[in-house]
Amino acid sequence: MTDVKIRLYVEHPMGAGQRLALNKDQSHYLFAVMRQPLGARIAVFNGIDGEWLAEVSKANKRNGELELVSQRRAQQSPPDLWLLFAPIKKARTDFIVEKAAEMGASRILPVQTDFTNSDRIRQDRLQAHAVEAAEQCGGTYVPEVADLAKLSHVLRDWPEDRKLMFCDETLTEEAGAMAALSAAGKGAWAVLIGPEGGFSEAERAQLRALPFSHPVSLGPRILRADTAAVAALTLWQLSLGDWR
Amino acid sequence: MTDVKIRLYVEHPMGAGQRLALNKDQSHYLFAVMRQPLGARIAVFNGIDGEWLAEVSKANKRNGELELVSQRRAQQSPPDLWLLFAPIKKARTDFIVEKAAEMGASRILPVQTDFTNSDRIRQDRLQAHAVEAAEQCGGTYVPEVADLAKLSHVLRDWPEDRKLMFCDETLTEEAGAMAALSAAGKGAWAVLIGPEGGFSEAERAQLRALPFSHPVSLGPRILRADTAAVAALTLWQLSLGDWR
Repeated sequence: MTDVKIRLYVEHPMGAGQRLALNKDQSHYLFAVMRQPLGARIAVFNGIDGEWLAEVSKANKRNGELELVSQRRAQQSPPDLWLLFAPIKKARTDFIVEKAAEMGASRILPVQTDFTNSDRIRQDRLQAHAVEAAEQCGGTYVPEVADLAKLSHVLRDWPEDRKLMFCDETLTEEAGAMAALSAAGKGAWAVLIGPEGGFSEAERAQLRALPFSHPVSLGPRILRADTAAVAALTLWQLSLGDWR
Repeated sequence: MTDVKIRLYVEHPMGAGQRLALNKDQSHYLFAVMRQPLGARIAVFNGIDGEWLAEVSKANKRNGELELVSQRRAQQSPPDLWLLFAPIKKARTDFIVEKAAEMGASRILPVQTDFTNSDRIRQDRLQAHAVEAAEQCGGTYVPEVADLAKLSHVLRDWPEDRKLMFCDETLTEEAGAMAALSAAGKGAWAVLIGPEGGFSEAERAQLRALPFSHPVSLGPRILRADTAAVAALTLWQLSLGDWR
């Protein structure tokens, strides 16, 4: 396989010989920042058709163009896995979105909990981080970042066939959680990470009582939310996901 | 247990009734930043004697003092686990150290690999990050951050009884890695994360040939080094560490 350094997410159908117009940001990145010449080869993906090899057919810093050559890799379907997390300080929220994309989440839902400080997020900025992470990690899809919603509302409207792995910081031992997850079975799942101040007692009681929830421990130390996101997604991927 | 919000790492023996002189940074933090009054209670740990309750006996922004009251928690011995990683950009190197502390590594070794860009680190700054992370995550020890060394030298002087979990980004499936780790058994271990550009072919061949090395996969996507550190330490903790 040709070694290609640059990967771009594009919203465009794929097909050999098709021309693909780049938007201003993509043109600036490819031709002003990365200085790609005419004929240079890069990889593109659209979340549906796998990864394609493309050739620069017009090197212009404002409106460049690529020509699609051939499929390099088949589409990888992501596990049907949501990540729910309570937004924290700006940089760490960005990190959580980036890490969720690398770890293979297919949908990212920022939620407000009783102890969440933030009452708004920049959805567009977080979605751009998810695109960048997908380009960088070699995935062939971009997770969708949802708008901020109250955890209680998300749980009220919960799809009945989706299981929830809930990271309960009051549990300090794994104690068979992986076996329990595996036993709960594959299918649609979500992972819920608590806010930095933890869940409230009321939230924890509600979460434990939900018929679709599976509490797990992330060990004996208190993890920051971004660390917890990666650890929880690792646990899930090892138990039920595409790492197996 | 009394709820105590502040935890401090101190280099001081512990004993009920003992007075503990705070240094300038600690005094500034407790009395200028956190505005703790005389008699306020905080938690302290020294890496040996568990966590102790202490009372402010002199509230001074330059040279404050605490009086030790009683032990709150027994010493948790960390797993004998090293993390070896190739330093990357400044912020992400800081994150790796922070996350290694939260995830329970006992020693952190920055290593130069064939594709590592950085040829120096600020050991003192990284050690301070490890202290802060230990204070924040509730651990009762602080991992030691070693000076930067060449990976080839570290491997040449490798202690013969220490096993090495080596994250090989060319493996894309976990394929029983956890079972293999568990079978390799408890004891002294190290986890090695590759640099952002991956290992060189020569390094990978050397690593695979080492009698104490156990290659594992971190899934089908390419993880950034800080993501990989958390994922790898999660895998190890679930297989052999203190999460079980």
